[in-house]
Amino acid sequence: MKENRITDLFGIRYPIVQGGMVWVSGWRLAVAVSEAGGLGLIGAGSMYPGVLREHIRKAKSATKKPFGVNVPLLYPGVEEIMQMLVDEGVKIVFTSAGNPMRWTGFLQSHGVKVAHVVSSVKFALKAAEAGVDAIVAEGFEAGGHNGREETTTMILIPAVRRVLSLPLLAAGGIGTGRQMLSAMILGADGVQVGSRFVVTEESSAHILFKEAVLAVKDGDTDLTLKEIVPTRLIKNKFYEKLQALYRTCPTVDEIKALLGRGRAKKGMFEGDLEEGELEIGQVAALFDDILPAGEVVRRMLEEFRLAQIECGKFQNFE
Amino acid sequence: MKENRITDLFGIRYPIVQGGMVWVSGWRLAVAVSEAGGLGLIGAGSMYPGVLREHIRKAKSATKKPFGVNVPLLYPGVEEIMQMLVDEGVKIVFTSAGNPMRWTGFLQSHGVKVAHVVSSVKFALKAAEAGVDAIVAEGFEAGGHNGREETTTMILIPAVRRVLSLPLLAAGGIGTGRQMLSAMILGADGVQVGSRFVVTEESSAHILFKEAVLAVKDGDTDLTLKEIVPTRLIKNKFYEKLQALYRTCPTVDEIKALLGRGRAKKGMFEGDLEEGELEIGQVAALFDDILPAGEVVRRMLEEFRLAQIECGKFQNFE
Repeated sequence: MKENRITDLFGIRYPIVQGGMVWVSGWRLAVAVSEAGGLGLIGAGSMYPGVLREHIRKAKSATKKPFGVNVPLLYPGVEEIMQMLVDEGVKIVFTSAGNPMRWTGFLQSHGVKVAHVVSSVKFALKAAEAGVDAIVAEGFEAGGHNGREETTTMILIPAVRRVLSLPLLAAGGIGTGRQMLSAMILGADGVQVGSRFVVTEESSAHILFKEAVLAVKDGDTDLTLKEIVPTRLIKNKFYEKLQALYRTCPTVDEIKALLGRGRAKKGMFEGDLEEGELEIGQVAALFDDILPAGEVVRRMLEEFRLAQIECGKFQNFE
Repeated sequence: MKENRITDLFGIRYPIVQGGMVWVSGWRLAVAVSEAGGLGLIGAGSMYPGVLREHIRKAKSATKKPFGVNVPLLYPGVEEIMQMLVDEGVKIVFTSAGNPMRWTGFLQSHGVKVAHVVSSVKFALKAAEAGVDAIVAEGFEAGGHNGREETTTMILIPAVRRVLSLPLLAAGGIGTGRQMLSAMILGADGVQVGSRFVVTEESSAHILFKEAVLAVKDGDTDLTLKEIVPTRLIKNKFYEKLQALYRTCPTVDEIKALLGRGRAKKGMFEGDLEEGELEIGQVAALFDDILPAGEVVRRMLEEFRLAQIECGKFQNFE
């Protein structure tokens, strides 16, 4: 039996990390996943520093298990957030959307394990150069913010694995135990799961957004806003307005004007399904129910084990 | 040990189908794959009926193993081609790019096994309704013509599998034995492999195109021409011209005018790397060498077997 470098690195039982998603991943979700043996992440991207501090403190008092924080590096005020994470004794930080060179060493010098999210081999190599402890390689099928290369998980994981030996988490399109096993066969040591944890009881997403996620079928999301930050959205009324604008060959400023501010909050947190941005991954096409987050972890592992047994029963075609 | 429905259906040894690609898949490639125990397909899409007949006859005289023909249903003259396939005694036809309702019954009444290529659950269900013997579900990462839904293989295979029990081949992003096992864990019975067979000795692609394929890294292809038929291309000079045109908000007619005719032939068959369309899948990022097609089959199976053993050695996290 092989050791698992992700469980070893983070001191957790199962190599399932819950993605730190804006408007979804507060302390309740992170604690539920960590208590179930995975790694819960608080999503700092949608929190003011004071709110984030409160979530961290609540998580600390609610679980003795390891948990972490996801920090998008391009957010304004990242200096304040990084210092606060260290002050609060956070031991695991996932960084994304920016250059890991600036913060990895600082965090590690305070005993923090650092993973960085990338969408290409080039940025995986840069993250390795920055000295991160683990890489999250996220494919095109992922929800929310996404890379420009549009490389899917089926390609990205082996492409990163062939040039890097660091602990590697697959993200994008992973919401079931079969997908988890599939990603590990491709070369990942574990998985980061986002969308599946949106539709959990502990997710802070609005119930109407959760219901919209359960209704998603294949083809119901699209990667759009590529001129700003490529973002995968459900094709709702706002998305259709955006597509209508695109047909007029708009400037970037016109796109930004239509987008305005706060649409992700409006859609995902406040439940405005028409005018909000509804960020979710393609994998939502496979979800049928809102479950406790711990139950998501348990079911993924159960399916993982069954698929492992099945895997041994495929003919080996000798 | 489970039986394999793809090998049973087509009377082949290994559930590896070589995609019938324009300008690449002549009788030499198809025969080499079939002789190695896979299923070779002649790609009718780039052949006049007389040329196709010649390829079929050469394949028949070169192998006693099963082989097939891929027919894009939207091609002009499809009636003539279908009658000719029956007249020539072709026993396996893969149809794509069109409605399978029109031809499936006709082919089957002449003893032909029919598989149909789809890119969505909706079209998989329509193909099943048309009575096809097998489905090929092809993800966004695939080269050449592609679906509008942009659903990746990691999602499409389980999404199709949960609604259909038909024999299912995964396509798009499959070029290694690990990817093959990964796809089978997701629910496929076997795989259709395109891009990896472009870079084989028996492929009729121009050597300069083959070398361009070997040079592809992640992010070097893009799905473009979405207003006409979404097509995944290498980002060459023609592609950059196309992108420059897109920035001017062109009409569909202007795009068609730039595209002109015969660019796929020019790029892939004649080796014009600047002005030709170079159709290849994202998986090309993983290829390093031009091999005999039979060797591709053998290496895929070897890696498949090793990955199967590895799969049993992952912790089951109990």
